[in-house]
Amino acid sequence: MKGAVRTSLIGIILLTCLAATGCAEPTCKVQRFGAVIGVKKEAIPEYKRLHAETWPSVLQAIRECNIRNYSIFLKEVEKDKWYLFAYYEYTGEDIKADMEKMKTYQAMQDWWKLTDPLQEPLPIREKDEWWAKGEQVFYTE
Amino acid sequence: MKGAVRTSLIGIILLTCLAATGCAEPTCKVQRFGAVIGVKKEAIPEYKRLHAETWPSVLQAIRECNIRNYSIFLKEVEKDKWYLFAYYEYTGEDIKADMEKMKTYQAMQDWWKLTDPLQEPLPIREKDEWWAKGEQVFYTE
Repeated sequence: MKGAVRTSLIGIILLTCLAATGCAEPTCKVQRFGAVIGVKKEAIPEYKRLHAETWPSVLQAIRECNIRNYSIFLKEVEKDKWYLFAYYEYTGEDIKADMEKMKTYQAMQDWWKLTDPLQEPLPIREKDEWWAKGEQVFYTE
Repeated sequence: MKGAVRTSLIGIILLTCLAATGCAEPTCKVQRFGAVIGVKKEAIPEYKRLHAETWPSVLQAIRECNIRNYSIFLKEVEKDKWYLFAYYEYTGEDIKADMEKMKTYQAMQDWWKLTDPLQEPLPIREKDEWWAKGEQVFYTE
Protein backbone atom coordinates (compact mmCIF):
# COMPACT_ATOMS: atom_id res chain seq x y z
CA MET A 1 0.00 0.00 0.00
CA LYS A 2 2.79 2.39 0.93
CA GLY A 3 4.49 1.49 -2.35
CA ALA A 4 1.34 2.35 -4.28
CA VAL A 5 1.08 5.75 -2.58
CA ARG A 6 4.71 6.47 -3.39
CA THR A 7 4.26 5.40 -7.02
CA SER A 8 1.18 7.62 -7.35
CA LEU A 9 3.02 10.54 -5.80
CA ILE A 10 5.93 10.18 -8.21
CA GLY A 11 3.46 9.85 -11.08
CA ILE A 12 1.67 13.06 -10.10
CA ILE A 13 4.97 14.93 -9.82
CA LEU A 14 6.10 13.64 -13.22
CA LEU A 15 2.83 14.64 -14.91
CA THR A 16 2.93 18.09 -13.29
CA CYS A 17 6.48 18.59 -14.53
CA LEU A 18 5.65 17.41 -18.02
CA ALA A 19 2.69 19.78 -18.11
CA ALA A 20 5.06 22.58 -17.08
CA THR A 21 7.27 21.86 -20.09
CA GLY A 22 4.22 22.36 -22.29
CA CYS A 23 4.39 18.77 -23.45
CA ALA A 24 1.75 16.38 -22.13
CA GLU A 25 3.46 13.14 -23.10
CA PRO A 26 7.06 12.07 -22.64
CA THR A 27 7.25 11.12 -26.32
CA CYS A 28 5.75 14.36 -27.67
CA LYS A 29 7.89 16.26 -30.15
CA VAL A 30 7.64 20.03 -30.01
CA GLN A 31 7.56 21.84 -33.36
CA ARG A 32 8.84 25.41 -33.27
CA PHE A 33 7.53 28.15 -35.55
CA GLY A 34 8.62 31.68 -36.41
CA ALA A 35 6.33 33.85 -38.51
CA VAL A 36 6.27 37.45 -39.67
CA ILE A 37 3.71 40.00 -40.75
CA GLY A 38 3.67 43.75 -41.31
CA VAL A 39 1.76 46.05 -39.00
CA LYS A 40 0.42 49.46 -39.97
CA LYS A 41 2.37 52.13 -38.14
CA GLU A 42 -0.75 54.03 -37.11
CA ALA A 43 -2.34 50.81 -35.82
CA ILE A 44 0.48 49.91 -33.41
CA PRO A 45 -1.08 51.45 -30.28
CA GLU A 46 -4.33 49.54 -30.91
CA TYR A 47 -2.47 46.30 -31.63
CA LYS A 48 -0.53 46.63 -28.39
CA ARG A 49 -3.62 47.56 -26.41
CA LEU A 50 -5.53 44.51 -27.66
CA HIS A 51 -2.65 42.14 -26.95
CA ALA A 52 -1.94 43.54 -23.52
CA GLU A 53 -5.41 42.34 -22.55
CA THR A 54 -5.98 39.40 -24.85
CA TRP A 55 -9.39 37.86 -24.24
CA PRO A 56 -9.32 34.75 -22.04
CA SER A 57 -11.45 32.98 -24.68
CA VAL A 58 -8.69 33.57 -27.25
CA LEU A 59 -5.99 32.29 -24.90
CA GLN A 60 -8.12 29.23 -24.22
CA ALA A 61 -8.60 28.52 -27.94
CA ILE A 62 -4.83 28.80 -28.51
CA ARG A 63 -4.23 26.34 -25.70
CA GLU A 64 -6.91 23.90 -26.87
CA CYS A 65 -5.25 23.90 -30.29
CA ASN A 66 -1.96 22.81 -28.70
CA ILE A 67 -0.03 26.05 -29.14
CA ARG A 68 2.36 26.84 -26.27
CA ASN A 69 4.97 29.43 -25.32
CA TYR A 70 3.66 31.96 -27.81
CA SER A 71 5.32 35.38 -28.05
CA ILE A 72 4.88 38.26 -30.48
CA PHE A 73 7.58 40.89 -30.91
CA LEU A 74 7.24 44.27 -32.61
CA LYS A 75 10.13 45.81 -34.51
CA GLU A 76 10.76 48.72 -36.87
CA VAL A 77 12.98 47.01 -39.43
CA GLU A 78 13.37 49.89 -41.87
CA LYS A 79 12.40 53.49 -41.26
CA ASP A 80 8.57 53.52 -40.85
CA LYS A 81 8.34 49.80 -41.75
CA TRP A 82 7.12 47.87 -38.74
CA TYR A 83 6.82 44.14 -38.46
CA LEU A 84 5.48 41.63 -35.96
CA PHE A 85 7.45 38.45 -35.33
CA ALA A 86 5.73 35.51 -33.73
CA TYR A 87 7.32 32.52 -32.05
CA TYR A 88 5.28 29.57 -30.84
CA GLU A 89 5.54 25.90 -30.11
CA TYR A 90 3.12 23.24 -31.32
CA THR A 91 2.75 20.25 -29.02
CA GLY A 92 -0.08 18.33 -30.66
CA GLU A 93 -0.18 15.48 -33.15
CA ASP A 94 -1.77 17.16 -36.19
CA ILE A 95 -1.06 20.84 -36.70
CA LYS A 96 -3.16 21.12 -39.86
CA ALA A 97 -6.23 19.76 -38.06
CA ASP A 98 -5.61 21.97 -35.02
CA MET A 99 -5.21 25.11 -37.15
CA GLU A 100 -8.50 24.29 -38.90
CA LYS A 101 -10.08 23.72 -35.49
CA MET A 102 -8.86 27.15 -34.35
CA LYS A 103 -10.80 28.81 -37.16
CA THR A 104 -14.05 27.31 -35.80
CA TYR A 105 -13.86 29.18 -32.48
CA GLN A 106 -16.18 32.18 -32.37
CA ALA A 107 -13.65 33.95 -30.13
CA MET A 108 -10.91 33.62 -32.76
CA GLN A 109 -13.18 34.83 -35.54
CA ASP A 110 -14.14 37.88 -33.47
CA TRP A 111 -10.51 38.50 -32.49
CA TRP A 112 -9.20 38.30 -36.05
CA LYS A 113 -11.92 40.74 -37.15
CA LEU A 114 -10.19 43.26 -34.88
CA THR A 115 -6.55 42.34 -35.53
CA ASP A 116 -6.48 41.55 -39.28
CA PRO A 117 -7.17 45.15 -40.39
CA LEU A 118 -4.22 46.33 -38.27
CA GLN A 119 -1.82 44.03 -40.12
CA GLU A 120 -0.24 44.07 -43.57
CA PRO A 121 0.64 40.53 -44.65
CA LEU A 122 3.80 40.14 -46.75
CA PRO A 123 3.04 40.36 -50.48
CA ILE A 124 5.40 37.41 -51.02
CA ARG A 125 3.77 35.09 -48.46
CA GLU A 126 2.48 31.65 -49.48
CA LYS A 127 -1.05 31.78 -50.85
CA ASP A 128 -2.58 29.93 -47.88
CA GLU A 129 -0.76 32.12 -45.34
CA TRP A 130 -1.65 35.25 -43.39
CA TRP A 131 1.41 35.34 -41.14
CA ALA A 132 4.35 34.16 -43.30
CA LYS A 133 6.35 31.32 -41.77
CA GLY A 134 10.14 31.36 -41.74
CA GLU A 135 12.51 28.43 -42.10
CA GLN A 136 14.15 27.29 -38.87
CA VAL A 137 17.92 27.26 -39.49
CA PHE A 138 19.16 26.88 -35.91
CA TYR A 139 18.03 25.41 -32.64
CA THR A 140 19.60 24.65 -29.30
CA GLU A 141 17.73 23.69 -26.17
CA MET B 1 15.83 5.13 5.74
CA LYS B 2 13.11 4.19 3.25
CA GLY B 3 11.64 7.66 3.71
CA ALA B 4 15.00 9.23 2.92
CA VAL B 5 15.34 7.20 -0.28
CA ARG B 6 11.85 8.23 -1.34
CA THR B 7 12.53 11.90 -0.58
CA SER B 8 15.78 11.75 -2.58
CA LEU B 9 14.02 10.09 -5.48
CA ILE B 10 11.31 12.75 -5.55
CA GLY B 11 14.00 15.42 -5.31
CA ILE B 12 15.90 13.98 -8.27
CA ILE B 13 12.73 13.77 -10.37
CA LEU B 14 11.82 17.36 -9.49
CA LEU B 15 15.28 18.67 -10.40
CA THR B 16 15.27 16.71 -13.67
CA CYS B 17 11.89 18.17 -14.55
CA LEU B 18 12.97 21.69 -13.67
CA ALA B 19 16.09 21.28 -15.81
CA ALA B 20 13.85 20.13 -18.68
CA THR B 21 11.85 23.35 -18.44
CA GLY B 22 15.12 25.23 -18.93
CA CYS B 23 14.81 26.83 -15.52
CA ALA B 24 17.13 25.59 -12.78
CA GLU B 25 15.24 27.08 -9.86
CA PRO B 26 11.55 27.07 -9.09
CA THR B 27 11.64 30.84 -8.57
CA CYS B 28 13.54 31.64 -11.77
CA LYS B 29 11.89 34.11 -14.13
CA VAL B 30 12.42 33.48 -17.82
CA GLN B 31 12.99 36.53 -20.01
CA ARG B 32 12.02 36.08 -23.66
CA PHE B 33 13.78 37.84 -26.53
CA GLY B 34 13.10 38.30 -30.21
CA ALA B 35 15.77 39.88 -32.41
CA VAL B 36 16.24 40.54 -36.10
CA ILE B 37 19.11 41.03 -38.51
CA GLY B 38 19.52 41.06 -42.28
CA VAL B 39 21.40 38.29 -44.06
CA LYS B 40 23.12 38.68 -47.44
CA LYS B 41 21.21 36.65 -50.01
CA GLU B 42 24.37 35.12 -51.44
CA ALA B 43 25.55 34.13 -47.93
CA ILE B 44 22.44 32.14 -47.02
CA PRO B 45 23.81 28.69 -47.98
CA GLU B 46 26.94 29.28 -45.87
CA TYR B 47 24.88 30.62 -42.95
CA LYS B 48 22.66 27.54 -43.04
CA ARG B 49 25.61 25.18 -43.40
CA LEU B 50 27.37 26.68 -40.37
CA HIS B 51 24.24 26.56 -38.21
CA ALA B 52 23.31 23.02 -39.21
CA GLU B 53 26.55 21.94 -37.56
CA THR B 54 27.08 24.57 -34.90
CA TRP B 55 30.27 23.90 -32.98
CA PRO B 56 29.71 22.16 -29.62
CA SER B 57 31.93 24.83 -28.02
CA VAL B 58 29.50 27.52 -29.19
CA LEU B 59 26.48 25.60 -27.90
CA GLN B 60 28.26 25.17 -24.57
CA ALA B 61 29.05 28.89 -24.33
CA ILE B 62 25.40 29.73 -25.04
CA ARG B 63 24.31 27.35 -22.30
CA GLU B 64 26.86 28.61 -19.79
CA CYS B 65 25.57 32.13 -20.39
CA ASN B 66 22.04 31.00 -19.45
CA ILE B 67 20.46 31.15 -22.88
CA ARG B 68 17.89 28.42 -23.52
CA ASN B 69 15.43 27.35 -26.21
CA TYR B 70 17.19 29.36 -28.90
CA SER B 71 15.86 29.26 -32.46
CA ILE B 72 16.78 31.24 -35.58
CA PHE B 73 14.36 31.53 -38.49
CA LEU B 74 15.17 32.71 -42.01
CA LYS B 75 12.62 34.64 -44.07
CA GLU B 76 12.48 36.62 -47.32
CA VAL B 77 10.40 39.56 -46.16
CA GLU B 78 10.49 41.61 -49.36
CA LYS B 79 11.71 40.40 -52.75
CA ASP B 80 15.46 39.67 -52.33
CA LYS B 81 15.45 41.06 -48.77
CA TRP B 82 16.20 38.25 -46.36
CA TYR B 83 16.15 38.47 -42.60
CA LEU B 84 17.01 36.23 -39.67
CA PHE B 85 14.72 36.20 -36.64
CA ALA B 86 16.04 34.88 -33.38
CA TYR B 87 14.01 33.76 -30.37
CA TYR B 88 15.68 32.81 -27.10
CA GLU B 89 15.03 32.62 -23.40
CA TYR B 90 17.31 33.96 -20.70
CA THR B 91 17.18 32.07 -17.43
CA GLY B 92 20.02 33.70 -15.47
CA GLU B 93 20.11 36.53 -12.96
CA ASP B 94 22.12 39.17 -14.84
CA ILE B 95 21.78 39.24 -18.60
CA LYS B 96 24.20 42.13 -19.07
CA ALA B 97 26.94 40.27 -17.21
CA ASP B 98 26.21 37.02 -19.06
CA MET B 99 26.31 38.73 -22.47
CA GLU B 100 29.66 40.29 -21.56
CA LYS B 101 30.85 36.87 -20.40
CA MET B 102 29.83 35.37 -23.75
CA LYS B 103 32.16 37.76 -25.56
CA THR B 104 35.12 36.37 -23.60
CA TYR B 105 34.76 32.83 -25.05
CA GLN B 106 37.32 32.12 -27.75
CA ALA B 107 34.75 29.87 -29.46
CA MET B 108 32.26 32.74 -29.74
CA GLN B 109 34.90 35.13 -31.07
CA ASP B 110 35.91 32.59 -33.73
CA TRP B 111 32.28 31.85 -34.57
CA TRP B 112 31.30 35.51 -34.94
CA LYS B 113 34.31 36.04 -37.24
CA LEU B 114 32.58 33.60 -39.61
CA THR B 115 28.96 34.67 -39.15
CA ASP B 116 29.21 38.48 -38.84
CA PRO B 117 30.31 39.02 -42.48
CA LEU B 118 27.26 37.03 -43.67
CA GLN B 119 24.88 39.37 -41.86
CA GLU B 120 23.65 42.90 -42.50
CA PRO B 121 22.58 44.54 -39.24
CA LEU B 122 19.64 46.92 -39.43
CA PRO B 123 20.76 50.50 -40.06
CA ILE B 124 18.21 51.66 -37.46
CA ARG B 125 19.39 49.31 -34.68
CA GLU B 126 20.46 50.69 -31.28
CA LYS B 127 24.10 51.72 -31.23
CA ASP B 128 25.17 48.90 -28.88
CA GLU B 129 23.31 46.24 -30.89
CA TRP B 130 24.28 43.81 -33.64
CA TRP B 131 21.03 41.85 -33.74
CA ALA B 132 18.22 44.39 -33.14
CA LYS B 133 15.83 43.45 -30.34
CA GLY B 134 12.08 43.74 -30.74
CA GLU B 135 9.51 44.69 -28.13
CA GLN B 136 7.45 41.83 -26.74
CA VAL B 137 3.79 42.76 -27.18
CA PHE B 138 2.18 39.39 -26.46
CA TYR B 139 2.85 36.26 -24.48
CA THR B 140 0.89 33.21 -23.47
CA GLU B 141 2.36 30.11 -21.92
